[in-house]
Amino acid sequence: MKNIKDLSNEDKSYLAGFLDGDGSIHVQLIKSKTKYGYHPRVSVVFYQKTKRHWFLMDLKKKIGFGVLRKRKDGMSELTITGFTPVRNILVILSPFLKLKKSLSILILDIIEEYKRVTSIASFLEVCKKIDETAKYTDSKTRKNTYFSVKNYLDSPVETEERNKDSFPIFKKSS
Amino acid sequence: MKNIKDLSNEDKSYLAGFLDGDGSIHVQLIKSKTKYGYHPRVSVVFYQKTKRHWFLMDLKKKIGFGVLRKRKDGMSELTITGFTPVRNILVILSPFLKLKKSLSILILDIIEEYKRVTSIASFLEVCKKIDETAKYTDSKTRKNTYFSVKNYLDSPVETEERNKDSFPIFKKSS
Repeated sequence: MKNIKDLSNEDKSYLAGFLDGDGSIHVQLIKSKTKYGYHPRVSVVFYQKTKRHWFLMDLKKKIGFGVLRKRKDGMSELTITGFTPVRNILVILSPFLKLKKSLSILILDIIEEYKRVTSIASFLEVCKKIDETAKYTDSKTRKNTYFSVKNYLDSPVETEERNKDSFPIFKKSS
Repeated sequence: MKNIKDLSNEDKSYLAGFLDGDGSIHVQLIKSKTKYGYHPRVSVVFYQKTKRHWFLMDLKKKIGFGVLRKRKDGMSELTITGFTPVRNILVILSPFLKLKKSLSILILDIIEEYKRVTSIASFLEVCKKIDETAKYTDSKTRKNTYFSVKNYLDSPVETEERNKDSFPIFKKSS
């Protein structure tokens, strides 16, 4: 079984350079049936033209995890998602990253803080940090933000649903 | 004075990863007043959004050469051009490149072979190798190819001009 910790410093430097050059590290707030109505999804994505799909296959083998797919536009993606895999790869690559170092450290912080969430207030603090990541990315659109979550949690109907923890009787009027 | 040979293997790996991810290595045939009417121009280019121009400034400092410019479309470029600088950086990075390794080795070969050109036939061999680089790049348009050079060298008017090595009396009819 491959272990990402066994990568040489040269391999880690190469991966960091490649990720800085043409990769993506991001966190989104996803609407879900969890306690707070949203949960964070963290991802690290490597891209390459599908004509060089072999390269991402090699990368996946080297890293030991990730989901590889061919998009319809001629690009391939190797996506690492989930708190543990993303934490594992970012812990390894952060010291070698240059462009995405601050973003990587912020996302590691979000993963740690989300683990310790025990209240709406502490979840909203995590959401604020998720909004902060926009400073470090070129993404122009964020579907859900701190305010989406706050509005949702402030809505009395939704709160009732949450508290009852059962099938909603009242539909949210939106 | 900085010397690219002093870079650590980790720095070389990072640069190779970054160049594989979002950089460009290429060679073009440029029309010129040289003996064969064209000469090769080799380049290594690193790109980054101008809002992270500092990164390319750091890179230039690390490499010790290159020309940095801000484009009008929000992108910055660090361009290394010329046989000696390109040879120096590619000799250093080739062992660490993965996606652009074959291209890099081919371009080093072109640089060496061009030095030894002593005849039209040997220059045309270099042009063939330049055409071969298209296999390794995503570039769809090549202005000048082996055939542009061959047509030029086969043209009697141009040959006369070349042989006289003086100001042309006859303009090329095309």
